[in-house]
Amino acid sequence: MTTDYLIENTSANKSFGGWHKQYCHHSETLNTKMRFAIYLPPQVAKNQKVPVLYWLSGLTCTDENFMQKAGAQRIAAQLGIAIVAPDTSPRGEGIADDDGYDLGQGAGFYVNATQAPWNRHYQMYDYIVKELPELIEATFPVSQKRAISGHSMGGHGALIIAMLNPNRYCSMSAFSPICNPINAPWGQKAFNAYLGKDQSTWRNFDASELMREATQMVPAKVDQGLSDDFLAEQLKPETLEEAAKASGYPLELSLHEGYDHSYYFIASFIEDHLHFHAKHLNE
Amino acid sequence: MTTDYLIENTSANKSFGGWHKQYCHHSETLNTKMRFAIYLPPQVAKNQKVPVLYWLSGLTCTDENFMQKAGAQRIAAQLGIAIVAPDTSPRGEGIADDDGYDLGQGAGFYVNATQAPWNRHYQMYDYIVKELPELIEATFPVSQKRAISGHSMGGHGALIIAMLNPNRYCSMSAFSPICNPINAPWGQKAFNAYLGKDQSTWRNFDASELMREATQMVPAKVDQGLSDDFLAEQLKPETLEEAAKASGYPLELSLHEGYDHSYYFIASFIEDHLHFHAKHLNE
Repeated sequence: MTTDYLIENTSANKSFGGWHKQYCHHSETLNTKMRFAIYLPPQVAKNQKVPVLYWLSGLTCTDENFMQKAGAQRIAAQLGIAIVAPDTSPRGEGIADDDGYDLGQGAGFYVNATQAPWNRHYQMYDYIVKELPELIEATFPVSQKRAISGHSMGGHGALIIAMLNPNRYCSMSAFSPICNPINAPWGQKAFNAYLGKDQSTWRNFDASELMREATQMVPAKVDQGLSDDFLAEQLKPETLEEAAKASGYPLELSLHEGYDHSYYFIASFIEDHLHFHAKHLNE
Repeated sequence: MTTDYLIENTSANKSFGGWHKQYCHHSETLNTKMRFAIYLPPQVAKNQKVPVLYWLSGLTCTDENFMQKAGAQRIAAQLGIAIVAPDTSPRGEGIADDDGYDLGQGAGFYVNATQAPWNRHYQMYDYIVKELPELIEATFPVSQKRAISGHSMGGHGALIIAMLNPNRYCSMSAFSPICNPINAPWGQKAFNAYLGKDQSTWRNFDASELMREATQMVPAKVDQGLSDDFLAEQLKPETLEEAAKASGYPLELSLHEGYDHSYYFIASFIEDHLHFHAKHLNE
């Protein structure tokens, strides 16, 4: 791979002494233009190479939801961690889509689609695992220490990506993740479209299945609100917990009374997640 | 006044141990249905009556911008302060409007309109000063200790409302306020429409004019980013600073290199504002 990427800065906001910036670039993997956001903490101005937390958002989100609503920059600035927030799918004219909010644009599920028409652009797994970190590490003053986190669909994405690449991530975490998509309507709809009707391929991208059979462990933290409308039907943290027990996976699962699926929940506990990642990124 | 208000809770999210809630009610003052948001810190569950910070948003905003983006709930929960965020104007069908983003719906400027067609609904000054606090204090476990803050148009609103009612507010603050609207395009357009062509009435609602002639002082804190695109033409903090010097007003004005007009700026310094208000609310 070359570092000759075309990348364009489209916005910049000073934030807690560092900078929130948005960039557009042509993704070879996704075969289209993509936008991402990065928070660069104040430490980069002192020529320090900082580690990176990748944040994967949930259904319908872009790079902006987390950066505007989670309140993470304050803690990232204290800890000296960069945060990268990609989009949740390829987007725009000429990109396959669906009328539902839970398939197509805004709903890439962080897998590599094998089925037409999705397979032409929907290769979010490869984009997040390979192309985006290469671009980030070639462009910004960051180290190759990586952590990954996310919310809902993106929480699931963070867990499977770290478990499938345990040497690439120091730690993984999730808020309200879809823990067992092969047994949940959101996951079944997406996997059927992107991966096809042969369900034997689905298990390779299911967080609970991967955790049950894991042999190389990545420190994991999951937080779930107990007043989350999607808890019983879509999220199923109990399945992930059982899988962790079966394999002895180092999963810290915390359940929180009264909290829902929104960014109000994420904002309330993001500080804990950033400290968790900082501990492992600095080991 | 009676406490027999019609008020409807339309959303609730647990946040930092307290609750973010949205309510709709019929406003007598504005002659239409209005929505506001309130953050109730965890202390209210212990039967404590907490003081209230009113937050007035800027052009185009609703109650949601501050509650979703400022990250204030974390500190309000620590300090035991409720936050109330009203809308920035009356809204909806049958309410006068303008094609510009800076007049009409989303741009009430916190004054009482005297001119048709605006005067039928645009009475935001009375709504913020009288009706909304009466409703809040009749409905929620809050004290009558009040502070007021805001951003841009709402920063100006906070300053004029506190200066015109120094006995009702313990402290006032603003991010990036329009400091001298009678000499700025946004203010001139709005005051011309709402207050009419006779500019002698405008001075009664201009923060710099009020501060220059003030005799009863409210502790004041203003923060301004120096990379704010609106700084020179619309905001003019130097005029407010000169007015404070002329009257000996207790104004803490802080200028911040690199920061812009966005919520990334507000989020970076909201903690300072909440501590400032807590000090005066608890005096």
